[in-house]
Amino acid sequence: MFCFVIKNFKELVGNTIEKYMEGREIVLYILEEVLKKVNGYNVIKERVKRINDAIMINGRKIDLFDYKRIFLIGFGKASAEMAKAMEEIVEFDDSAIISTRKAETRRVKIYIGTHPYPSQENIDITEKILEIVKKADKDDLIFCLISGGGSSLLCKPRVSLEALIDVTEELMKKGCGIEELNTVRKHLSCVKGGQLAKMSKAKIISLIISDIIGNPVEFISSGPTAEDTTTFEDALKILKKYGVKNKEVLEVIKRGIKGEIDETPKKLGNVENFVIADIGLACNEAKKVAEEFGIKARIIKTDLRGEAKEVGKDLAKYARYYPRDNAILIFGGETTVKVKGDGKGGRNQEMMLSAIEEIKNEHIVMLSCGTDGIDGNSPAAGAIIDGYSYEKAKRKSLNVYEYLERNDSYTFFEKMGDAIITGYTGTNVMDIQIIYKL
Amino acid sequence: MFCFVIKNFKELVGNTIEKYMEGREIVLYILEEVLKKVNGYNVIKERVKRINDAIMINGRKIDLFDYKRIFLIGFGKASAEMAKAMEEIVEFDDSAIISTRKAETRRVKIYIGTHPYPSQENIDITEKILEIVKKADKDDLIFCLISGGGSSLLCKPRVSLEALIDVTEELMKKGCGIEELNTVRKHLSCVKGGQLAKMSKAKIISLIISDIIGNPVEFISSGPTAEDTTTFEDALKILKKYGVKNKEVLEVIKRGIKGEIDETPKKLGNVENFVIADIGLACNEAKKVAEEFGIKARIIKTDLRGEAKEVGKDLAKYARYYPRDNAILIFGGETTVKVKGDGKGGRNQEMMLSAIEEIKNEHIVMLSCGTDGIDGNSPAAGAIIDGYSYEKAKRKSLNVYEYLERNDSYTFFEKMGDAIITGYTGTNVMDIQIIYKL
Repeated sequence: MFCFVIKNFKELVGNTIEKYMEGREIVLYILEEVLKKVNGYNVIKERVKRINDAIMINGRKIDLFDYKRIFLIGFGKASAEMAKAMEEIVEFDDSAIISTRKAETRRVKIYIGTHPYPSQENIDITEKILEIVKKADKDDLIFCLISGGGSSLLCKPRVSLEALIDVTEELMKKGCGIEELNTVRKHLSCVKGGQLAKMSKAKIISLIISDIIGNPVEFISSGPTAEDTTTFEDALKILKKYGVKNKEVLEVIKRGIKGEIDETPKKLGNVENFVIADIGLACNEAKKVAEEFGIKARIIKTDLRGEAKEVGKDLAKYARYYPRDNAILIFGGETTVKVKGDGKGGRNQEMMLSAIEEIKNEHIVMLSCGTDGIDGNSPAAGAIIDGYSYEKAKRKSLNVYEYLERNDSYTFFEKMGDAIITGYTGTNVMDIQIIYKL
Repeated sequence: MFCFVIKNFKELVGNTIEKYMEGREIVLYILEEVLKKVNGYNVIKERVKRINDAIMINGRKIDLFDYKRIFLIGFGKASAEMAKAMEEIVEFDDSAIISTRKAETRRVKIYIGTHPYPSQENIDITEKILEIVKKADKDDLIFCLISGGGSSLLCKPRVSLEALIDVTEELMKKGCGIEELNTVRKHLSCVKGGQLAKMSKAKIISLIISDIIGNPVEFISSGPTAEDTTTFEDALKILKKYGVKNKEVLEVIKRGIKGEIDETPKKLGNVENFVIADIGLACNEAKKVAEEFGIKARIIKTDLRGEAKEVGKDLAKYARYYPRDNAILIFGGETTVKVKGDGKGGRNQEMMLSAIEEIKNEHIVMLSCGTDGIDGNSPAAGAIIDGYSYEKAKRKSLNVYEYLERNDSYTFFEKMGDAIITGYTGTNVMDIQIIYKL
């Protein structure tokens, strides 16, 4: 599919003193292999196998002869890539995918929506998807490709678009967790929280790339094909917790509580959900590739949370204490950034920025990268640092603390020449950190 | 030799909620086995083997028939225990040991000196040791038992006792490292820094229990039988670095620089030094015993340094991030405490006090203990904590931060019932931390 995922690979390797260069090359190579492994196209190709007239997914056999027509729908950042692979495996009677970027499909229809905020375009494209969902009958089969970002892309709100965007933005800025946010989203939507699946008489097989810790299917892309365990009451509690005052939003939720709007489905008979890629797959691949280099590798955590700049220091210290040299330590998960400054950056770059002093002069190379190729509001996906970075920053008169204070990690790493640029990766399994103790 | 090393073992196990009790029992049991393993008596018994008329030490054979007379001298906290074992292996023509506590020897003469500050008694006992050193002839053999604490115990200063104590105290309070301190001590002494060995025509075999990171023989007990690499110039630099103004001390050092006092010996032909126990041995034993319980154990670091309350947090975090449950992590080394308050405590208890919040509600039990049975100015050797300690402190209205601020960790742990009391252990290989991730 692609040879080099990291667009500035050569610069990143060369951009330090010699003793770290090989270490950089190795961790960047591992990152590339990881991004290839969890890329939507590759994941479908590896996990969905055609055997004559049957499809095998995670050990489950689906006989295509059992169905009259087969449809393809999808939503999420990686769903276009996934669709491209799917059409190489199955021929579809009709299709509609909403994603953030096109893939070179032959027949499958891919529409580009807006992200991270929904729009009228998203609503219009969602209608095209719903047409398929509704026209599919009892004897039909729908493959549904889900990946992170679907909560914004698949969109048929019970409130105005403006109110939806306002409440989403407000909750995110106040540090609302993704599961809480998606509980609210489900109850402001006509399609999320299992409601899309409920609209259809057809059998639905969802193939999911997870971007949430622990793979809770009902929260990934707000779970349009998953039984929902949350209620209008839960949504109201969350809105109150974060002090959301939007009248339109509160009114819909209160109407739901009164029973004037149907609660999201708690039981669905026509759906099977398969998680086919997650941060665990990414970390396993990193370990495998590291070991191919003859380097002992360990996955330390795949559920990393917390404030990025604290976690960055923790990981650096962990590496320093780690008793073995020539070892690679792998972490995955999703941290958060309390934005105070108006700089450019994201959690991955901020994490690395905070770790620079902790690995000063240590024989350590480390990187953190968003697998979706996007780190916050910056053009980079992450950053790479090593034991020389502290000195290098000093020589360039870059003050680590000032950049941290302004949440301006991208500007810092851009000047250091150590921002990792990948562009679109066709996947989204949160963030990965690869640390090489030389 | 002893059954229970930890005098309040039962209280320490019972003193938490049930889910941590077995974990406490295991780490305390491991600590006991470690203390037994590195105890001076046991170490000599294990490492010094009598085979007919020869002695085997660390694979080196010493034929006792080659020597006319055999003497035993020694200095350090563990040297009495070591001597007790030595007299069961070899018969000595004469002996003199200076230690901090008696051992039940049959014939070997043990004298009790003062520690951590030298005294006239120490000087008088040192003379008895020097009598043996001087009377031993070319055909004689001296076994010399060295352990930490010997710098104060073996004492024949070139300055007044008062000046020696003043400068030692001043340097320690100013955070001077042990290697710097002992460089000064060597050059204010007639016996340290290889000078004791130089006084003798006899062959000297030193058996050493190391209490310094990396086992630098020339600094353990200020290396009376080791070739010295430091000079009067080095001593002067250190005194200047810490702003020591004591005239008597500076005068001796300056006379040394002028050549009016002999420099410490840089080459010794009559000595062999064997390190027979160190923190590595202690950590290996901890690992072995943990594995006998079927628990996976790893030695993470045996050269732990730094401010105790920072290191305590680091170790707790390391354990939290550690990817495996039912695992024991082992650390060793010697941290420091910047004393600000006037409380009772030491680096081990302070380290545990600082870690309490980090392991709140975690399935972790951890302890830190000085292998010499002494933690700072307190009657305890260390402390044990677990995931319930934070809550327990709250219920007892003990504020962790207030006690940390006052350097009053012993009072805290005494009230918690979690101070580890061992009494005299007959060894000194710095501190050990044992962390059990349940």
